Amino acid sequence: MNESFCFEVTHRSGQARSGVITMPRGIIRTPAFMPVGTAATVKAMYPDAVKALGADIVLSNTYHLMLRPGAERIAELGGLHKFMNWPYPILTDSGGFQVMSLAKLRKLDENGVTFQSHIDGARYVLTPERSMEIQALLGSDIEMQFDECVRLPCSEAEAERAMRLSLRWAERSKTAFRAKPGRAIFGIVQGGATQALRVESAQALVDMEFNGYAIGGLAVGEPQAIMLAMIETVVPHLPFLKPRYLMGVGTPDDLLQSVGRGIDMFDCVMPTRAGRHGLAYTRYGRLNLRNARHASDASPIDPYSACTAARDYSRAYLHHLIKSGEILGMMLLTAVNLAYYQDLMAGMRSAIAAGNFDAFCAETKTNWARGEGKAA
Amino acid sequence: MNESFCFEVTHRSGQARSGVITMPRGIIRTPAFMPVGTAATVKAMYPDAVKALGADIVLSNTYHLMLRPGAERIAELGGLHKFMNWPYPILTDSGGFQVMSLAKLRKLDENGVTFQSHIDGARYVLTPERSMEIQALLGSDIEMQFDECVRLPCSEAEAERAMRLSLRWAERSKTAFRAKPGRAIFGIVQGGATQALRVESAQALVDMEFNGYAIGGLAVGEPQAIMLAMIETVVPHLPFLKPRYLMGVGTPDDLLQSVGRGIDMFDCVMPTRAGRHGLAYTRYGRLNLRNARHASDASPIDPYSACTAARDYSRAYLHHLIKSGEILGMMLLTAVNLAYYQDLMAGMRSAIAAGNFDAFCAETKTNWARGEGKAA
Repeated sequence: MNESFCFEVTHRSGQARSGVITMPRGIIRTPAFMPVGTAATVKAMYPDAVKALGADIVLSNTYHLMLRPGAERIAELGGLHKFMNWPYPILTDSGGFQVMSLAKLRKLDENGVTFQSHIDGARYVLTPERSMEIQALLGSDIEMQFDECVRLPCSEAEAERAMRLSLRWAERSKTAFRAKPGRAIFGIVQGGATQALRVESAQALVDMEFNGYAIGGLAVGEPQAIMLAMIETVVPHLPFLKPRYLMGVGTPDDLLQSVGRGIDMFDCVMPTRAGRHGLAYTRYGRLNLRNARHASDASPIDPYSACTAARDYSRAYLHHLIKSGEILGMMLLTAVNLAYYQDLMAGMRSAIAAGNFDAFCAETKTNWARGEGKAA
Repeated sequence: MNESFCFEVTHRSGQARSGVITMPRGIIRTPAFMPVGTAATVKAMYPDAVKALGADIVLSNTYHLMLRPGAERIAELGGLHKFMNWPYPILTDSGGFQVMSLAKLRKLDENGVTFQSHIDGARYVLTPERSMEIQALLGSDIEMQFDECVRLPCSEAEAERAMRLSLRWAERSKTAFRAKPGRAIFGIVQGGATQALRVESAQALVDMEFNGYAIGGLAVGEPQAIMLAMIETVVPHLPFLKPRYLMGVGTPDDLLQSVGRGIDMFDCVMPTRAGRHGLAYTRYGRLNLRNARHASDASPIDPYSACTAARDYSRAYLHHLIKSGEILGMMLLTAVNLAYYQDLMAGMRSAIAAGNFDAFCAETKTNWARGEGKAA
């Protein structure tokens, strides 16, 4: 077993690159999509099925787990991997983003954030040191620095203030992390939609020498063009031989565009959340299974998929399950979507290795545009 | 493939018996527990997992399927087996029981029942002929006669009226069924809690020569003792070489007691419904995983279970999932409960074959009484 955290870029195709992260709990093939397991479960999925569909790593949320069941409790029970029966790598966020979006009565100062739980109103304090302590208690393989993420659009002054605070918190996070064999800590580039701020953030973080670099504060409401512009601004300032992680992204097209600009890792609730609401992502576009036109359609989502959920059940059946509020409908469509996302990543990795990433993107978009979710 | 419906009693232990029903779509080992797939899905379960846990047959509900998605639609889509991706035998009820318990504005007369859908208020008529037509459209392997099921307690006059109406509907159901190779139709013994009515019903149905006989109108609120007394009243009047099915039953103890009185088949929503509400059935009793005492319990439900859901997840994790409203909690506990029910049936079948059913019952009850759901 490899006891260190290593990243190797194996192939390039334009700005896109494929590679492998090697960690004690397993390898992560990049570009990688990480399914989100917010409360220590990828919703409506058995963990072995998440793996079987192609995930090498999942993300779990510090904010949710610190509130329930509590980081100390998970540590007593042997850590998050054992708790959720997922022996492969886990990335944990720092809690910062979700304190801002979910918690009540937040008070932010230099030290950290004081807030009330959205579950029971209990009072908590989250600082860079406590965030790293929680992530260590969980036994995370890739920890994220504690940061402040502002919503877009926001004033440049506000973006600058939050970016500089996040840099000071990055220092404190890295100090609190201490070197752990085989574990990694990633810094998070902030700076809103302002190029100069993004560059300053990236350069300062690179000087601190993290194991990898995330781009945060995007996919928070801004147009895709702004997101892509910020990626193009930041990537040249990140070291080639460190993984690049675009947080909270995105649609299949976001993934394609971002990989084409040099991103290696992604997480997003989109495939799982959409599945629970009757939406399927397929090679031939997005389908809303609630739509009455599927009610008597005997064809499966994708007869050529390796995923039984996409292959062995008719659209009519999925329509029926979703309309009836049946849990199996959510289970099957979550699996369909995770399978499609992982197939898309695998397709990108193969195309990069073959040196024809642009052709792959063009073909993928042509298929999406065909619509109806069906082979011609 | 066997093209006829056959039942063979292979072993006896006291009044208990084990055997095999052979049908074109597969064999059913008896005594058998049929998981309930109301709306063409055993809730929160993949169909292959239902099979893997030991089910040879599932039950599906005519009432629900006729309302949504409609029997004609399922027939157009290739039948219920294909629709729900379950290639093994399916038993369908007649719809009578659920019209009484779920539908609005019911009007019952000699011809049948007129009612409004509980989903959208649409008006339907269900008669013996239409019930059999629907069950044939679904492609059911074992169809049930259309009957009227009264709630207990009820007056003897009411029980008698409903029993006689059900006998006339049994005749009409059997005529409408017509002989189908490999398919079966079961009659349903009614008569409330009155011995003489139950005997009359059983004898009249036996004269009509059904492929099997169900006992209906029990487990509808009466004490277990009355249910068992009715079984003891009816069973001697049923032919030895036909399957005996106790409808809608029951708790693990109900199953043990009823098999000991000669019952071969059961269905019940209890294991699936209980699982969705945080209750686990185990060899060592019933557990409420919502209870705070499980919050830091690292032990699984049953380390010796063949079911991964019972073995590979801690009680603390299950408690967390249920408290958090996570779908995976419902998935795992439904699997735990179906596994336990099927293990209990397999244990009874083995004990009957070994001629020590009474000893098996005594040991099973001793284990339940131990409580805490843990091995000593």
